Amino acid sequence: MASIKATSSPLLLERLAYNPPLPPAFNEMSSLVSQAETEDPSKQDPALKHSLEQIFPKIVGQPILSFKNDPSAAKSKPLIVGVVLSGGQAPGGHNVIAGLFDALKKINPDSQLIGFVNGPGGIVDNKTMPITSELLAKYRNTGGFDIIGSGRTKIQSKKQFMAAKRTVETLNMDGLVVIGGDDSNTNAALIAEFFAQQNVKCKCVGVPKTIDGDLANHHIEISFGFDTCVKTFATEVGNICRDARSAVKYWFFIKMMGRSASHIALETGMQCHPNMTIISEEVLAKKTSMKQLVSEIADMVQARSAVGKDYGVVLIPEGLVEFIPEIQHLIRDLNRMLATKLHQSVLEALTKPEMKCEYFESTLKGESAECYASLPLEIQTQLIMDRDPHGNVAVSQIETEKLMGQVVGVELERRKAEGQYKGKFDCRTFFCGYEGRAGFPSNFDSKYCYALGHTAAALLKGGKNGYISCVKNLNKSTSEWTPYGIPLTSMMNIEERHGEQKPVIKKYLVTLDSEKFKYFASQRDHWKLADDYRYPGPIQFFGPEIISEDSDYHLKSVTGALSKL
Amino acid sequence: MASIKATSSPLLLERLAYNPPLPPAFNEMSSLVSQAETEDPSKQDPALKHSLEQIFPKIVGQPILSFKNDPSAAKSKPLIVGVVLSGGQAPGGHNVIAGLFDALKKINPDSQLIGFVNGPGGIVDNKTMPITSELLAKYRNTGGFDIIGSGRTKIQSKKQFMAAKRTVETLNMDGLVVIGGDDSNTNAALIAEFFAQQNVKCKCVGVPKTIDGDLANHHIEISFGFDTCVKTFATEVGNICRDARSAVKYWFFIKMMGRSASHIALETGMQCHPNMTIISEEVLAKKTSMKQLVSEIADMVQARSAVGKDYGVVLIPEGLVEFIPEIQHLIRDLNRMLATKLHQSVLEALTKPEMKCEYFESTLKGESAECYASLPLEIQTQLIMDRDPHGNVAVSQIETEKLMGQVVGVELERRKAEGQYKGKFDCRTFFCGYEGRAGFPSNFDSKYCYALGHTAAALLKGGKNGYISCVKNLNKSTSEWTPYGIPLTSMMNIEERHGEQKPVIKKYLVTLDSEKFKYFASQRDHWKLADDYRYPGPIQFFGPEIISEDSDYHLKSVTGALSKL
Repeated sequence: MASIKATSSPLLLERLAYNPPLPPAFNEMSSLVSQAETEDPSKQDPALKHSLEQIFPKIVGQPILSFKNDPSAAKSKPLIVGVVLSGGQAPGGHNVIAGLFDALKKINPDSQLIGFVNGPGGIVDNKTMPITSELLAKYRNTGGFDIIGSGRTKIQSKKQFMAAKRTVETLNMDGLVVIGGDDSNTNAALIAEFFAQQNVKCKCVGVPKTIDGDLANHHIEISFGFDTCVKTFATEVGNICRDARSAVKYWFFIKMMGRSASHIALETGMQCHPNMTIISEEVLAKKTSMKQLVSEIADMVQARSAVGKDYGVVLIPEGLVEFIPEIQHLIRDLNRMLATKLHQSVLEALTKPEMKCEYFESTLKGESAECYASLPLEIQTQLIMDRDPHGNVAVSQIETEKLMGQVVGVELERRKAEGQYKGKFDCRTFFCGYEGRAGFPSNFDSKYCYALGHTAAALLKGGKNGYISCVKNLNKSTSEWTPYGIPLTSMMNIEERHGEQKPVIKKYLVTLDSEKFKYFASQRDHWKLADDYRYPGPIQFFGPEIISEDSDYHLKSVTGALSKL
Repeated sequence: MASIKATSSPLLLERLAYNPPLPPAFNEMSSLVSQAETEDPSKQDPALKHSLEQIFPKIVGQPILSFKNDPSAAKSKPLIVGVVLSGGQAPGGHNVIAGLFDALKKINPDSQLIGFVNGPGGIVDNKTMPITSELLAKYRNTGGFDIIGSGRTKIQSKKQFMAAKRTVETLNMDGLVVIGGDDSNTNAALIAEFFAQQNVKCKCVGVPKTIDGDLANHHIEISFGFDTCVKTFATEVGNICRDARSAVKYWFFIKMMGRSASHIALETGMQCHPNMTIISEEVLAKKTSMKQLVSEIADMVQARSAVGKDYGVVLIPEGLVEFIPEIQHLIRDLNRMLATKLHQSVLEALTKPEMKCEYFESTLKGESAECYASLPLEIQTQLIMDRDPHGNVAVSQIETEKLMGQVVGVELERRKAEGQYKGKFDCRTFFCGYEGRAGFPSNFDSKYCYALGHTAAALLKGGKNGYISCVKNLNKSTSEWTPYGIPLTSMMNIEERHGEQKPVIKKYLVTLDSEKFKYFASQRDHWKLADDYRYPGPIQFFGPEIISEDSDYHLKSVTGALSKL
């Protein structure tokens, strides 16, 4: 620990020593037993149930589980458990592992926790490291996924599944905990089913992770990391609102990380009251064209300018371009072109970005050609960049904030020429992104993740398979939090992906009929013209509970309840 | 206050109620008197002294002042004081005004504080608003300059000086407090001299403000705002270091606000230990060419890649491009071209950015033409953008982080083709900028600014003219802080600007022989290859003193003392 202390910040040392309070159920891990709840009220429709039974014959139809202490319960044998981090960082991942470790040791001091290195690929390749209390002492309540690393490998092929089986059998594992988002938890269900079919002793359970907030449903109130990420971004956006209002000469166009879902943009918007927050889901629902969107922003800039305010702040969700009809079509056409060898080889042969873009401009047809030609060169270049492994555009790499600033600028020049607008539009851009994924988890995320780790251990102690850790009542104090096990299959839909019927956990997007969105919609006209900015300030780990614990924040954030603003 | 509460964040409400502790000297403002200290040991050279006597005959040669309580001192009459915010935002400006107000009321409850609206232009145009305790209640310990607004007007012409005289006489003012950076404090000295020459009753004193940290000398230990700004950026950079280390696949190139000086980059680098922190002053001193700089970064990327680390973090000071010899020459040539009507009219006639850049590419000569041609189109465009009122390139608008990422990428491709480098260079960029200018001031800046406001009031109570507020011993606890008045002329040099000899407060840049830089230089090779990242985390207002007060931070930051790392 000497080397840690030498270079550690005082806050890091303080956070390493923080002991997150636990829900009461976890006070006595050794006597904890699960019990089946009455059936899930959200019955699946028969067709879906039938499809799921085909894919998950072994794990489908399990009950929701709650936990209670039963002093008569037999002492548990030591458990050998593996844990894996899957996908992008979310603050709190280290605490899930710490919670899992501490709970396993409480269950039986001889239990062991094994970390799979650098994501699910570590399971396939049997790359492991032991999780010890010495190791954890350097990672408790810290951000990042660096304790064991993460990765994006999906266990998909028969060969990979067999390798996973070999690994867990070699290690004599009783359980595998997959910490990940919707895709990774779907993968966890497939692993659980495969293990059951193969009579493998090892059980598999998931933990809901993602800063994007899109892994949520009537059981999962929020995924971990969302709280810290939004608070990190709200610090920045609040500061920028104050700067805009002080400098009175800049328009800030800010892109908000969050992939397709606009939860982060919406929640940050509600925390900070910028002049406009664009919601991709609304753009999609209303089929808002680029022209309409630009016109709406320009109207606001013009209206503010008319009352002497040549400044303001606009939040733009990262995934926006994929929701604007013209660009949606353009991206689809570009994806098709980029999937062919012919176009790819031409692309490789051309060296200058200008030439690549010109090639696509001349090869695209109809509206897509027009749309592409209308975009600035930078954006044209970004749209033809490498696709991700799923063949999708890397939305975080498209500078949508710059695109919107440029096209709004052009529209305002047009209005100025026509005498409608007399202001000055000086646009600065910002991206709330990577700095939100690996910060110190808030007290809320520290506690929540620690409880999620305990829940996963409780499920494995009971020999449960194909479940996801769940903690409810998160808007109350920790002493009222209640852990559950939710069957992964109860969260699933069947969707067509690349022409195949695949089970997927439905992404939770912003819904326009939620209380939360309705409240936002009722306020936004006021926020447009007034400078009603709100300044949340940096995450506090100490001080008054309303600031450091903020216990109702997440519920407001995700389920749409508005107990307090 | 009802409307504030309705939309306020809990942290804002808590900060509004915070009462910054004061240096003991200010406990009894009514009996505070100033005393002349022995002469400044840093004697000015005779030639400079002579020049300053020509420009500042009335205010030159005044002694440094300290303060003591004298119970026999006569009760002061009420003072009428005006205050103005000048230039860019720095966290704590509102607290200078609060400190000034509270001190004036302690001196005599009938004193009045008048705010000049939107910067020094408000003095010229006599645009004012009264500062009241009700108004201040909404702004204490908050960021931003929105209480009265700021501006960049310089009082320069005879007409402007006469208008200022008219204003302060109309308002019957006893004192004017100018809160600003080096330029604004130079302006404060000129105003003080003018008022003295014109026998105007009103005195003028300055307060040292700037996030850039370049207004510092052996008296001014630090300008206010630097502490909060660096802590804001260090939160972000620390988070990104953790993200880089967790994702193990991105190189982050981060531009650090700070204009010409690299103080912010250096201090953030020392707080977070990224793999490289470029220091503009070193690039200048060593005449490092773009090619050398790129080669040095590429060497590091290659060396890390060789040990399996295709990730890392590089900090790039905002002003860097102005310090690289080739680009320095290029900018000088472009500035000359842009100052002529001919080139300007051609520029206006051309609509597409590509065409503008092509025009310059073909019109520039020699090395500048080559250098310009070698830059990506985006950077070419940014270099020919509108100049600021001083004819300088707006460095914050040049995406140096992207430029460096692109040229390093090209160099790595070359090395790859030659078989020297086998890694993957996926570069993401970030700009630590506007979000650092208007955040909640740290406890340090809250206290420091509150004390600076009191110092300004103490100087005006004593009828002092041409001074700057100064508080020393900032690395000790507040009870040991000591206020001083420093004659503005003692901080001045004479420099040629636009062909004229002008008095200027010398900008404090990073010095390569300082203890601080030497420590940094001794560590950086280790930081290059090791992942010795440090995570300062968000600014804390509560909790252990070492975290929330951080009383030795600033001294380490600016004077180069390294009492603790």
